[in-house]
Amino acid sequence: MQYFTDTDMGLDIGQVNMAVESAFADHGRGLVQMPPKLYVTLPDGDFRTMPAYLPSLAIAGVKIVNVHPGNPRKGLPTVMALTVILDIETGQPTAVINATRLTDMRTGAAGAVAGKYLSLKKEIVLGVVGTGRQAQAQVSAISRELNIRQIKIWGRDPEHIRKFADRFMEFPCLAPSLENTCDCDVLVTATSSRSPLIRSEWIHDGTHINAIGADAPGKEELDPALLNRAQVFVDDISQAIHSGEINVPISNGLYRPADIAGTLGEVVIGKKKRGGAETITIFDSTGLAIQDLAIAKIAMQHGKKTDLPFP
Amino acid sequence: MQYFTDTDMGLDIGQVNMAVESAFADHGRGLVQMPPKLYVTLPDGDFRTMPAYLPSLAIAGVKIVNVHPGNPRKGLPTVMALTVILDIETGQPTAVINATRLTDMRTGAAGAVAGKYLSLKKEIVLGVVGTGRQAQAQVSAISRELNIRQIKIWGRDPEHIRKFADRFMEFPCLAPSLENTCDCDVLVTATSSRSPLIRSEWIHDGTHINAIGADAPGKEELDPALLNRAQVFVDDISQAIHSGEINVPISNGLYRPADIAGTLGEVVIGKKKRGGAETITIFDSTGLAIQDLAIAKIAMQHGKKTDLPFP
Repeated sequence: MQYFTDTDMGLDIGQVNMAVESAFADHGRGLVQMPPKLYVTLPDGDFRTMPAYLPSLAIAGVKIVNVHPGNPRKGLPTVMALTVILDIETGQPTAVINATRLTDMRTGAAGAVAGKYLSLKKEIVLGVVGTGRQAQAQVSAISRELNIRQIKIWGRDPEHIRKFADRFMEFPCLAPSLENTCDCDVLVTATSSRSPLIRSEWIHDGTHINAIGADAPGKEELDPALLNRAQVFVDDISQAIHSGEINVPISNGLYRPADIAGTLGEVVIGKKKRGGAETITIFDSTGLAIQDLAIAKIAMQHGKKTDLPFP
Repeated sequence: MQYFTDTDMGLDIGQVNMAVESAFADHGRGLVQMPPKLYVTLPDGDFRTMPAYLPSLAIAGVKIVNVHPGNPRKGLPTVMALTVILDIETGQPTAVINATRLTDMRTGAAGAVAGKYLSLKKEIVLGVVGTGRQAQAQVSAISRELNIRQIKIWGRDPEHIRKFADRFMEFPCLAPSLENTCDCDVLVTATSSRSPLIRSEWIHDGTHINAIGADAPGKEELDPALLNRAQVFVDDISQAIHSGEINVPISNGLYRPADIAGTLGEVVIGKKKRGGAETITIFDSTGLAIQDLAIAKIAMQHGKKTDLPFP
């Protein structure tokens, strides 16, 4: 068994996007095994357990990932992750992977795949709501699939906005009002909001939105009226109903599971298509274990590793 | 983060039994978080993912365990396990534990707790059906809670029976027919059978049975008529219905979930009691993640450990 650390070092984002796209295609074709992730609540946060088997890559395993919003005060990341890989022939654990950075990258990759298939334009103004690691990973990954002409960034903390803009100096960056940030071609929402931040009337026809932040029951970023105006694609139906952007509106009766347009995997394989130029599309991302396996496969070719005795 | 290997070395079985009993008590009181384990099917076996949080021990984590019946031909154990422990304050992974041997021990401990509370007698003839690691672990653990006057052991392979008897030379050991093996005070069934081995008419009134082998959909060891004659206690209601001894009879309509007498945790805390001297009791064990956390807590005080960088 090997322990892999620093697994994000030297990873090619384009390669990661492609691997994640391929995992979504397998998902769309029903070729993966992936029970909905399990949540366990801890005193100051939670952790999620995400097993899967991806036959096309001959990889199986489990990601374990926490969310503790108070961690930065203690000098730790909010989200930390470990992935355990099993040999598909024998079930033996073969690798343990530090997957903290990989989690950001694979979520970024899902947003990039959604943007590639659902954005009306290839040259875009990118609106970004939120300035954290997830928001940054979205920009990095999307920039490989679409040409970003301009970034509009909105966040609560001017210092975070400045750091964000510094990181993406290759793109013209503006920091307008939240409403103006929403006036864009592709919008990323990546906050930990528990009430709608984005009002429906701020979003013009044809916009594509990656709704990244809501990944647990009770979290939401978008006005439910916007969901009802738009075509909503999810990464996984049961996970999205339980913990995605649509979870709160569904539990309030403001959105119906039957209105989900399809999954991103179905879009990738051409089984589902976005509507015309007036259609607003939303990708509701909860994060799939198969994304973690796809990136783990690449990451195990990089990074430092330590041999550990097993069994 | 630390990697623990050889974690079973030097563990005191009595201490393990006590820790597992205490975890069952917490379960009986509803003081644990433990979603039902998730199953993922691989080409030649499966793996199960078992997260939990046990507040009384301030421990949280996930056990990942495979079952590959063909492994011994490849020189590997059928069952291998790894447990990841998370810090309950921050969610950070703090330990990865080789839990292969611990899995046997904690299952043995559950059988010992069941025997302690459900056996009519303290001095027993112990019947054992199966000769594998699980069967051996049952004997080791039960011997700490009950006085074993004699062991009757049944298995398909005479060589395995001989090895089993050699391991437990401190007890008088017989190897009679399967029917005669069932003529005992406490019976352990620990085979991988997928059809009933034990006929109802072989079991006399007052016997207690630890039904260990059936831990996945499709597996069963006991005649459904025996279940209906007996008081059936399970480790966890939803896991047992899905994958315990009762799973096949329930799916065939031969047993009803409403007939489950209670959980072992409820027995431990005195909320449920066994019937009188004529009652046959059955403990249907599927294996709980909280057992794995309880033994992990002890095991981390033993065994070799390696420091690993994280995050």
